[in-house]
Amino acid sequence: MNMHDLTRELQLSNDSKIVMLVADGLGGLPMTPGGKTELESANTPNLSALAKVGVQGASIPVKPGIAPGSGPGHLGLFGYDPLAYQIGRGALEATGIGFELQDGDVAIRCNFCTLDAAGNISDRRAGRISSEESAPLAVSLRQIKIPGIEVFVEPVKEHRFVVVLRGAGLSGNVADTDPQKTGVPPLDPRANDEASKKTAEVAKEFLAQARKILAGHPKANFHTMRGFASKPALPSYQEVYGLKAAAIAVYPMYKGLARLVGMDVIGQAQTLAEQIDTLEKAWQDYDFFFIHFKYTDSTGEDGNFNEKVKRIEELDGILPRIQKLGPTVMIVTGDHSTPSYLKSHSWHPVPTLLVSDCCRPDPHSTFNESTCITGGLGHFEAQYLMTLALSNAGRLGKFGA
Amino acid sequence: MNMHDLTRELQLSNDSKIVMLVADGLGGLPMTPGGKTELESANTPNLSALAKVGVQGASIPVKPGIAPGSGPGHLGLFGYDPLAYQIGRGALEATGIGFELQDGDVAIRCNFCTLDAAGNISDRRAGRISSEESAPLAVSLRQIKIPGIEVFVEPVKEHRFVVVLRGAGLSGNVADTDPQKTGVPPLDPRANDEASKKTAEVAKEFLAQARKILAGHPKANFHTMRGFASKPALPSYQEVYGLKAAAIAVYPMYKGLARLVGMDVIGQAQTLAEQIDTLEKAWQDYDFFFIHFKYTDSTGEDGNFNEKVKRIEELDGILPRIQKLGPTVMIVTGDHSTPSYLKSHSWHPVPTLLVSDCCRPDPHSTFNESTCITGGLGHFEAQYLMTLALSNAGRLGKFGA
Repeated sequence: MNMHDLTRELQLSNDSKIVMLVADGLGGLPMTPGGKTELESANTPNLSALAKVGVQGASIPVKPGIAPGSGPGHLGLFGYDPLAYQIGRGALEATGIGFELQDGDVAIRCNFCTLDAAGNISDRRAGRISSEESAPLAVSLRQIKIPGIEVFVEPVKEHRFVVVLRGAGLSGNVADTDPQKTGVPPLDPRANDEASKKTAEVAKEFLAQARKILAGHPKANFHTMRGFASKPALPSYQEVYGLKAAAIAVYPMYKGLARLVGMDVIGQAQTLAEQIDTLEKAWQDYDFFFIHFKYTDSTGEDGNFNEKVKRIEELDGILPRIQKLGPTVMIVTGDHSTPSYLKSHSWHPVPTLLVSDCCRPDPHSTFNESTCITGGLGHFEAQYLMTLALSNAGRLGKFGA
Repeated sequence: MNMHDLTRELQLSNDSKIVMLVADGLGGLPMTPGGKTELESANTPNLSALAKVGVQGASIPVKPGIAPGSGPGHLGLFGYDPLAYQIGRGALEATGIGFELQDGDVAIRCNFCTLDAAGNISDRRAGRISSEESAPLAVSLRQIKIPGIEVFVEPVKEHRFVVVLRGAGLSGNVADTDPQKTGVPPLDPRANDEASKKTAEVAKEFLAQARKILAGHPKANFHTMRGFASKPALPSYQEVYGLKAAAIAVYPMYKGLARLVGMDVIGQAQTLAEQIDTLEKAWQDYDFFFIHFKYTDSTGEDGNFNEKVKRIEELDGILPRIQKLGPTVMIVTGDHSTPSYLKSHSWHPVPTLLVSDCCRPDPHSTFNESTCITGGLGHFEAQYLMTLALSNAGRLGKFGA
C-alpha cells in the first residue's frame, strides 16, 4: 500500500484552502565558515511571525544526499515519490518549454550535429550553434510529413530542440541515436520493446526527411534524437487527493509540471505581486494553490548571494497578502536547496514551514536552515508534505479502525 | 530483507525484561495558540525523572500526516509495518469485542436493516435500533445451522453485530452485501476470488436463514454483511523477536490485538493499579510486557483536556511501581495522538521515552511534545521501536560481520 492508495481511501471533502508557496532553491549555505545562509541573512519579519504559530522542519527532496532537478524536486513536493514516478528526459524538455503533452505523445530531445562527408559525426553539438541560427532550422523541420502522425518541432536553445510525435500506437522506449562519440555515424532509432516499434519507425522516417532538409548546412546538417519519452502517467490531484488544484507560476517548466499532476494553470502573472493578484481572484474556485517563485533558485545558480537575500525578502513581503485570504493550511518550502556558494541545486534539506490551527507549533520564532533542523516536523521526505497538508486541512480520515 | 527478517536472524536470548507502557492517544495539542498540551500541563515528576536518564523521540505512528486507528497504531508499536500488515474490518470488529479468532476463521461485520414489502432496503441501520433491542435478535441468529461450518454470532452495539464462520476452506475476499443506498435490495455475497467461493455460499445460506428468523420484526427484519475478513496472518512475538510476551489490558480491543501477535493476555485488571498488580505477579514468567492504558485516549476523544491531564498524572503516579521491578528496558509511548482540541485520533508524532542502562540519554529533563522533537531518538516510525527495545535489552546481535 503506497501513500496514494492511502490518500485515495482516506480523502475527505471540506471547504478548506491549502496554499503551498514554493521558493525554488530556498535552502542555502554560508559563503564563509561561520557565516549565515541567505535565508538567515534576510530580513524576514513575516516568516518569523509565521514561525511563531507554525511548525517547521527540514524537507529532504528525494533521499539524503540526492540533489534533484526541478522534475523530481516538484514531484516530491506534490506528494509523488520521485523515485517511483520519473519524467522521461524528452517529456521534461517539452514540459520545460511550455509544450502541453497529451496522453500517448512521445517527446524527444534533439541535438543538431555535424556530419562529415563519410556520414560520421564530426561535432555532436553542431559547433554549439547559436539559438538565433538554430531556431529557424528547427522550424524548417515542421515541413516533415509522416502519414497518420502529427509532428511538432519546437526550438529550445543553441543546438537543442524538441520533437513531439502524436498518433495511435506510440510508446517511448526507444534507444538514443546519439553514439556519444565522434567519428562514427549516428545510430538508427531502435525500439527496446514491442510497443515502441512504431515509434522507432516514425523516428527513422523523421530523420530521413530531416537529413534532406538540413543537407548542405555547414554546421547543422543533421541531428540526433535522445531521451525518447512518453507523457508520464501521473495520477491527478483530483483523483489521489480529492483536490481541485491551481498552479500560479511564471515559468513554463513549473506550469508544465503542475499540469502533469492535473492542476489548472491559471493567470498570466509575470511578477510575484501579479501571482498574488491571480491567487486573490481565484480564491473561491480552488482547494489547493501551488505558487512558484523562481528567483530564489536563479540567483543561487548565479552565485549571487546578496540578490538571493533580496529575493527572499521580496517573498517575505508578499506573505501578508496571502495570510489575509485566510488559508486553512499555509506552507512555505522549496523544491531543493540552491546555495549561492555552490551555484547549483544541492542535496541539503529545505527549510519548510507549515501553519494551521492544529499544527502543534514548535518553540521556534524564526525560520531558517538552523532552526528547521530542530522543528516539530523533524527531518522528513518531501513526498510526505502533502499528507501533512491534507491532515492539517481536515481532509484525511483515519487509517484503519 | 525486512525488519522481521533481521530480528529473526539477529535475536539473542537473555533474562532481560522489557516493559512497553502504551498510553493510548498520548500526544496532544494546546487548546489555544501559545498554550500547553495535556502532557505539558500535567504534573509528571516520575516521567521527568525517567527523562533525565532516558532518551526520547517523536514516534510517527504510520507515515507523516496519517492518523491511525487502534489497529495500525498498535501494529506499528509492536513492530509490524502497518501498511504491510492490515487487519480486515471484520477481524478487527471481532477482536474489539473480545472474540478470539482462530486461524482460518472469517469474521463479518453485520448491520441490522429494514426491508420494505418489495424487499428493498428502507433503512440501512434498522432505525438505529437500541443495543437492548438488537442483542437478543443477534443471539436468536445463533440457531442458524450450516453443515460443516461452526457459526458464531456476537452482538456489538445498536444495529451492529459480528458473525464468525469457522470451517475448512473459508477465505475472506467476499464483497459487501450492503448496497450503500436505500430503495434497492441487499446484494448477494459475491466471492472476489476462487478461494472465497465457499465463504460466499455459506454467507448466502446464513442470510437465507436469517431472513426467516427476522421476518416480521418491525425494524430489524434483515441484515447486511460487510468487511468480510480472515484472521490476519501475523507472525508471533516468539518467532520474530524470541520474546515470551504478555499483554495487560482492560479493553477487549487491545487484548485482541496483542493476541493477534501471539502475546498471552494475562490478568483480569479493571484499573491501572490492578494492571500493575498483574505485572508484579507475572514478572518472572515473561520477557516482554505490553501494558495498555486507555483513558488518555478516551478523555482526548471527549475533548476533555483537564481529564486527560489527570489521567496522564495517574499514569505518572504508577511509574515507581514499575521501576521497582527493575525492567531492563522501560518504554512509555502512545499508539497515536488524541488531542482534546481535535476530539479524535490525529497524525501528530507521539512523545516516546526509552530508558535502559545503555540508551545514550539526551539532554532533556522533562518529557512532552516539545522536548521529544529534539530527543535522542529523533523522529522515527513506530515500527522501529521494537528493534530499539530489543537492542537496549541486549537481545539483538550484530548485523553482518
